[in-house]
Amino acid sequence: MFLGLDVISSQLPSWKDKALFTPGPLTTSRTVKQAMLRDLGSRDVEFIEIVKDVRQRLVALGGGSKDYTAVLMQGSGTFGIEATISSVIPPYGKLLVLVNGAYGKRLLKIADIHHIPATELTFVENIQPDAQALERILQSDPAITHVAVIHCETTTGIMNPIEDYGRIVKAHNRTYIVDAMSSFGAYPIDLKACGIDFLISSSNKNIEGVPGFSFVLAQKDVLKATKGFARTLSLDLLAQWEGLENDGQFRFTPPIHSILAFRQALIELEQEGGIAARGARYKKNYEATLLAMQGMGFKEYLKPEDQGYIITSFNYPDHPNFNFQQFYEQLSDKGYIIYPGKLTRADCFRIGHIGRLGLSDVKALMSAISKTLAEMKIQISE
Amino acid sequence: MFLGLDVISSQLPSWKDKALFTPGPLTTSRTVKQAMLRDLGSRDVEFIEIVKDVRQRLVALGGGSKDYTAVLMQGSGTFGIEATISSVIPPYGKLLVLVNGAYGKRLLKIADIHHIPATELTFVENIQPDAQALERILQSDPAITHVAVIHCETTTGIMNPIEDYGRIVKAHNRTYIVDAMSSFGAYPIDLKACGIDFLISSSNKNIEGVPGFSFVLAQKDVLKATKGFARTLSLDLLAQWEGLENDGQFRFTPPIHSILAFRQALIELEQEGGIAARGARYKKNYEATLLAMQGMGFKEYLKPEDQGYIITSFNYPDHPNFNFQQFYEQLSDKGYIIYPGKLTRADCFRIGHIGRLGLSDVKALMSAISKTLAEMKIQISE
Repeated sequence: MFLGLDVISSQLPSWKDKALFTPGPLTTSRTVKQAMLRDLGSRDVEFIEIVKDVRQRLVALGGGSKDYTAVLMQGSGTFGIEATISSVIPPYGKLLVLVNGAYGKRLLKIADIHHIPATELTFVENIQPDAQALERILQSDPAITHVAVIHCETTTGIMNPIEDYGRIVKAHNRTYIVDAMSSFGAYPIDLKACGIDFLISSSNKNIEGVPGFSFVLAQKDVLKATKGFARTLSLDLLAQWEGLENDGQFRFTPPIHSILAFRQALIELEQEGGIAARGARYKKNYEATLLAMQGMGFKEYLKPEDQGYIITSFNYPDHPNFNFQQFYEQLSDKGYIIYPGKLTRADCFRIGHIGRLGLSDVKALMSAISKTLAEMKIQISE
Repeated sequence: MFLGLDVISSQLPSWKDKALFTPGPLTTSRTVKQAMLRDLGSRDVEFIEIVKDVRQRLVALGGGSKDYTAVLMQGSGTFGIEATISSVIPPYGKLLVLVNGAYGKRLLKIADIHHIPATELTFVENIQPDAQALERILQSDPAITHVAVIHCETTTGIMNPIEDYGRIVKAHNRTYIVDAMSSFGAYPIDLKACGIDFLISSSNKNIEGVPGFSFVLAQKDVLKATKGFARTLSLDLLAQWEGLENDGQFRFTPPIHSILAFRQALIELEQEGGIAARGARYKKNYEATLLAMQGMGFKEYLKPEDQGYIITSFNYPDHPNFNFQQFYEQLSDKGYIIYPGKLTRADCFRIGHIGRLGLSDVKALMSAISKTLAEMKIQISE
């Protein structure tokens, strides 16, 4: 290698990054990040084998049915969502979106910009979209060809019953798109059992990789039938899949290092015990967070039965001294990053339970919150 | 941090990656890759400051005029190209593309998929698009609003005279788009002097970062006037810029680790002596490659005066034993990755001169090629 500037240091960085209690990008393991200390050619056989392995592991995580395939798409999760919406709905298609938060609304926005006819069933942010309403609209509007829903609406942390919706969508013979951005890898999802045709998630969520790409798990026959529907070049889902299938290569430069990190993350997910074990760890993080937060007088926004263990929204405490920006910064100064709210009607902040974090991290965050409340002279009345 | 699986290793990987003599992704420095050994929140102030610094450094590399701004876009270089073409041309616009290779054709493909009227001036792959022909078509077709050209056509390695074209495009008051994917950072480009309104390049080219995003250097007033033109959500260039300007954040999850690597790469570019010094190193790589290859009897595809120092196309030797796939694999086995050709009319392969490689690497590649020729029992007749 060129030696002029390439001072090789055997010392790893000595700082400690802040713990990320967010919906992602997340805290990842040291070994996941170390997997990026390489340079591979994007057309080299070693990289092609890694991509193949990653795609196979993703299909296995979705239940392992041979009817499904995995497509990686450069960019963030939203790029994968837009790739799907803009590539799989035919010119004569119509999309129904079940909405109970900002991410459902984003699906509508994507349909709109691509001039795809769309309709919505919108519910307030603490209510799951009603399955009977879905049934009724599919009965009454035969123009609807595709139904899309968010699994874990990160706006609140609410879990929507994708299996119930799937049964109805399939009974009415429509194509079913699930945005599982924040849930895949932490909740078991059997693609076939849920009747899902396209599921989208991203590299920097529960698989605990770093950002750089999204992935789409697709029912092969449904994907193959989308020839000519794509409305962009870069985000053409079928063309991307064909490239990966034909010679194992990406059409355009892949985020090689993110994929190397992701492969390591998939291995570590397996070592942890798969989705069940990872979900159990996150659930413990959630339960410990909830208990401690309630103990300090905070109140969660959602009813417990609707709440997932990915991220929790807490109402701003009813105290004159509370100021979210100050609260956030004082926690950040202590080494803990929480997340602002995204609700339209309620003042909330959010705490994530995912990433390479465990009970000791949650405990540390809780004492930082307790300390910060004291500094801000806030005593929350029950 | 969660300790269950996070086995912290202070050992860096002990393998040596193959040297990448390709148009990218490239061999990068160890320190660039080490910059990725962190996890930062995408909305955290430290990351926001890094993004700001990266954007400022990019504008400085483009000549530093205050009239320009930098937008980072998730995905590969093609994503940045499509973001530009699909975001800056109005509904009543028409694009002229100067074509002398596959990347020029790609611009036409992008215009086509977005139903943007386009016309082309196409030349054979070893000929630079003719400036007088450009002048004539701009005079005769007032519908043309935008002109796009590739600076270094990676198909061959030919350099197109973007400053000459720019003078004509500006004289005719059209918007000028330059795909400088393979040239930016290795050839000095003064955006203002060249009359460039939008220049696109990517993280994994001459700045010597890792893949993950592209960047667009844009004339601010021209960019601001594109409101409502975007044809996608993810690749909306103006909205992406507005996000970065308003609160310093990306609209959608950024490739944090690629950006950390890129910031380090920008620092190392400055330490090397900037674009002039980097270009000089690449030029030495090119000259040493050409001399040694000619010495072995290989013949370059382009005339010397059209050839840049980014990548060189060599004709397949006229010998019955030559088989590119075998040649490639035997070089790969020795630790050197070269690149296949992409020409429509001639059988060529390519050798890149860019990335964290110097004369000792070139020398090593040349002796590997010499050895491989001997193994394949090839003696090239002059």
